[in-house]
Amino acid sequence: MAKTNPGRFFEDYRLGEVIAHAVPRTVSGGERALYHALYPSRFALASSDEFARASGLPAAPMDDLITFHTVFGKTVPDISLNAVANLGYAEGYFRKPVYPGDTLRSESEVIGLKQNSNGKSGVVYVRTTGRNQRDEVVMEYVRWVMVRKGDLDAPAPETVLPDLAKAVDPADLIIPEGLDFSNYDFTLAGEPHRWGDYEIGEQIDHVDGVTIEEAEHMMATRLWQNTAKVHFDATFRPDGQRLIYGGHVISMARALSFNGLANAQMIVGLNGGAHANPCFSGDTVKAWSEVLDKAETSAPGVGAVRLRLVATKGGDPFRLKGQDGKYLPEVLLDLDFWALMPL
Amino acid sequence: MAKTNPGRFFEDYRLGEVIAHAVPRTVSGGERALYHALYPSRFALASSDEFARASGLPAAPMDDLITFHTVFGKTVPDISLNAVANLGYAEGYFRKPVYPGDTLRSESEVIGLKQNSNGKSGVVYVRTTGRNQRDEVVMEYVRWVMVRKGDLDAPAPETVLPDLAKAVDPADLIIPEGLDFSNYDFTLAGEPHRWGDYEIGEQIDHVDGVTIEEAEHMMATRLWQNTAKVHFDATFRPDGQRLIYGGHVISMARALSFNGLANAQMIVGLNGGAHANPCFSGDTVKAWSEVLDKAETSAPGVGAVRLRLVATKGGDPFRLKGQDGKYLPEVLLDLDFWALMPL
Amino acid sequence: MAKTNPGRFFEDYRLGEVIAHAVPRTVSGGERALYHALYPSRFALASSDEFARASGLPAAPMDDLITFHTVFGKTVPDISLNAVANLGYAEGYFRKPVYPGDTLRSESEVIGLKQNSNGKSGVVYVRTTGRNQRDEVVMEYVRWVMVRKGDLDAPAPETVLPDLAKAVDPADLIIPEGLDFSNYDFTLAGEPHRWGDYEIGEQIDHVDGVTIEEAEHMMATRLWQNTAKVHFDATFRPDGQRLIYGGHVISMARALSFNGLANAQMIVGLNGGAHANPCFSGDTVKAWSEVLDKAETSAPGVGAVRLRLVATKGGDPFRLKGQDGKYLPEVLLDLDFWALMPL
Repeated sequence: MAKTNPGRFFEDYRLGEVIAHAVPRTVSGGERALYHALYPSRFALASSDEFARASGLPAAPMDDLITFHTVFGKTVPDISLNAVANLGYAEGYFRKPVYPGDTLRSESEVIGLKQNSNGKSGVVYVRTTGRNQRDEVVMEYVRWVMVRKGDLDAPAPETVLPDLAKAVDPADLIIPEGLDFSNYDFTLAGEPHRWGDYEIGEQIDHVDGVTIEEAEHMMATRLWQNTAKVHFDATFRPDGQRLIYGGHVISMARALSFNGLANAQMIVGLNGGAHANPCFSGDTVKAWSEVLDKAETSAPGVGAVRLRLVATKGGDPFRLKGQDGKYLPEVLLDLDFWALMPL
Repeated sequence: MAKTNPGRFFEDYRLGEVIAHAVPRTVSGGERALYHALYPSRFALASSDEFARASGLPAAPMDDLITFHTVFGKTVPDISLNAVANLGYAEGYFRKPVYPGDTLRSESEVIGLKQNSNGKSGVVYVRTTGRNQRDEVVMEYVRWVMVRKGDLDAPAPETVLPDLAKAVDPADLIIPEGLDFSNYDFTLAGEPHRWGDYEIGEQIDHVDGVTIEEAEHMMATRLWQNTAKVHFDATFRPDGQRLIYGGHVISMARALSFNGLANAQMIVGLNGGAHANPCFSGDTVKAWSEVLDKAETSAPGVGAVRLRLVATKGGDPFRLKGQDGKYLPEVLLDLDFWALMPL
Repeated sequence: MAKTNPGRFFEDYRLGEVIAHAVPRTVSGGERALYHALYPSRFALASSDEFARASGLPAAPMDDLITFHTVFGKTVPDISLNAVANLGYAEGYFRKPVYPGDTLRSESEVIGLKQNSNGKSGVVYVRTTGRNQRDEVVMEYVRWVMVRKGDLDAPAPETVLPDLAKAVDPADLIIPEGLDFSNYDFTLAGEPHRWGDYEIGEQIDHVDGVTIEEAEHMMATRLWQNTAKVHFDATFRPDGQRLIYGGHVISMARALSFNGLANAQMIVGLNGGAHANPCFSGDTVKAWSEVLDKAETSAPGVGAVRLRLVATKGGDPFRLKGQDGKYLPEVLLDLDFWALMPL
């Protein structure tokens, strides 16, 4: 047992520590094809080299969430192998598009620690940074997880809570170099709705549903080299079901949101997110969105929309929380992000 | 709801109208690998760059049905989202091989309309054209579907039925530029049977069977960006099964036909096809073929065979229709196409 | 039926005969992505072009078992379509790494024959060689299978048993040209344990488990163009389950062994292997290893370890055989190979 990775426990984290995560990965058209087989993703920019070139990019970038999942997956053995819960995200920036041939790696800095009052676990805050082969940051985000203590007698660390922004300031969003939606082809993109057509407060039911299979979520989760046992080993639960990686629900909801938000081409900021309830195979995932904010950008023809994307496993759309302020049982995901759209 | 695509209803189509379909797509070795993982496809020309070069092509083309599914998938949101049934195919031409790196898009012209006598639906005939990034037509075909009316009071259009060929004239088949089977390696291809060894009327039982899983057909259907809800959402049916995209059965049967038709390397013409009965997960698909016709071509060493390819979910081979002239319940597909073979 | 492949029977093999197997195959980043989606493979050398370049290779090679499965798959129609059992492996050498873009083909020489005393079957020994598009041998191995006789009256051949090495001599291992682990980055590779940290006799429980799904093993097996019917056709067994290709278990166990053997980067020799019991969907595969031997190599910073890799479907680790000398019922695989590790 001495040579295998037991994962870290709460007392193993030190404030300011930087953890370099293992197993860099080169992505190719293979990862993209699999992503499009696992999710009904149809955003034209990540689907077509020609559409991307007409938008000022050198080729179709990988879907932004491929970047997120790849960077995230590398953190699992060091951050969340003994996690009780994935509590939240904040201050996420997509800084550089990723293209086939790029090689990604991740590192995380511990930016906050707080032992729980029961003394059995604590919350770890990390800022994770993903880099490509040129050492350019492709994305970064803050995540906090509840982690079990391995040694209950280990002393509690000084509580440090990071000061996290409620949302990414749109002035700080990074627009990919060269991006230009001045000559955007709405017909090829699939919908006529432009930035000006969306109003703050507007809600969109994305209508379509996808029923989840064990083989699919396991393939997705392995593709990101995410090693958390609960996603793969049926013996953990009496019903033989595996807990589905929250990122699978994120990608499924994002892909479903094409129907009504086909022009929300790129995710550039991640403001927050909650995995409200667990998802299992057999669940039929649907999604709805709400426009939370809008902003202009410096790039030609490009606007930004802040979206709440909610994934559910049934029930009517546009319902989120009960009178007790808690997420309704059918809500799987409540995600808050900035996306780029043609003006 | 206003921003999502409700699909078109019968009264929304106009004769002569040309519909440009959304979401161009760049294909890569990823799509090919997935195709070969989803279907037991082994045709040497689409499997090996070296075999393709020895046959006069610059590299291994994508399996012809990848082209068909990709071009077809783009039409679904505009043509068949509210379709009751996919009724037939005709006049299909594969005009240019597709290679990794090519970007495909589709458009359809409405070439026929006929309201049904019940006034609740009608038949729409479209000629769909797929093009690559150089605006070259890679394939075209006629398809007709029965579509519901959204407004039962909408007036019936003038009935126009296109004059469709019973089969593609072999003189009109397009042979890929440079194709040359003069030095064809039958050992590497997997079978010794050449064009001259097949007789009109000959029937071949392809023997092998594949049992279908939900995860597989959904991955395939998403890969072609086909958005029809019935393929993905288990809540449509009380048994939780999803109706399998007819193209999944086409590709499965074509791949199974390798055993006995390993040298039918390229599909170049689509004469017709019927999805005789629905397919569901758990069905074990088998296939048999009948040689309907043969023709010579202008390319060195290359002949053409017209094949009926039948997919079944049980029962004895070579049975197609009952005494009532209707397809037997175990018949899934009756496809009629021209393929190229070494002389 | 005359045109389909009935497979060979025991009496169809002749000592010294060389069988060229069909359907060469070009591999790409697509095959690699699928491999990483089907198995939790994380070995850094096959995951990252940058890590591979830092190790003296031109790019990330395909996982070694992709080579093995591809070469093996081609032999199935000629060697094991009528096999009763896959009995063993020996003298396996991985001679050249395979890279995206390479095209592989296989041939097998019959090196041994022995009819069983019941007269109904016999054992066929073949030495299979896989080559790339430059005719370079990428791997070779000996395999022996029990094959049914088609004609029970066919005379028994002279019994010839090949003289097979118990294990590959480490002096004969081929180190990929240029491989250099002098500047190996243990952090990026995922574990700090180097060649010197492993002791002969040491056992490692790889801890993690993966529950197998039908869709996954069928996709894997098709990807290698392995056509054995029992893996795909649910009608062969009353429970509708499909017998899982033994190679699926090999790759799953190898991937699981990352946890404790992350630095066993490349498989270079295959000493032996037994598929101890069949695997079916729903089984949860775990793995453990034992260090059988160690050897130095001529390459800078590179050592070799001989490993026994055991896959199980339950039970405690480190248990292999019962008092009767037979494999315990939970043991799926007992594999013996040489791998390269940083000193």
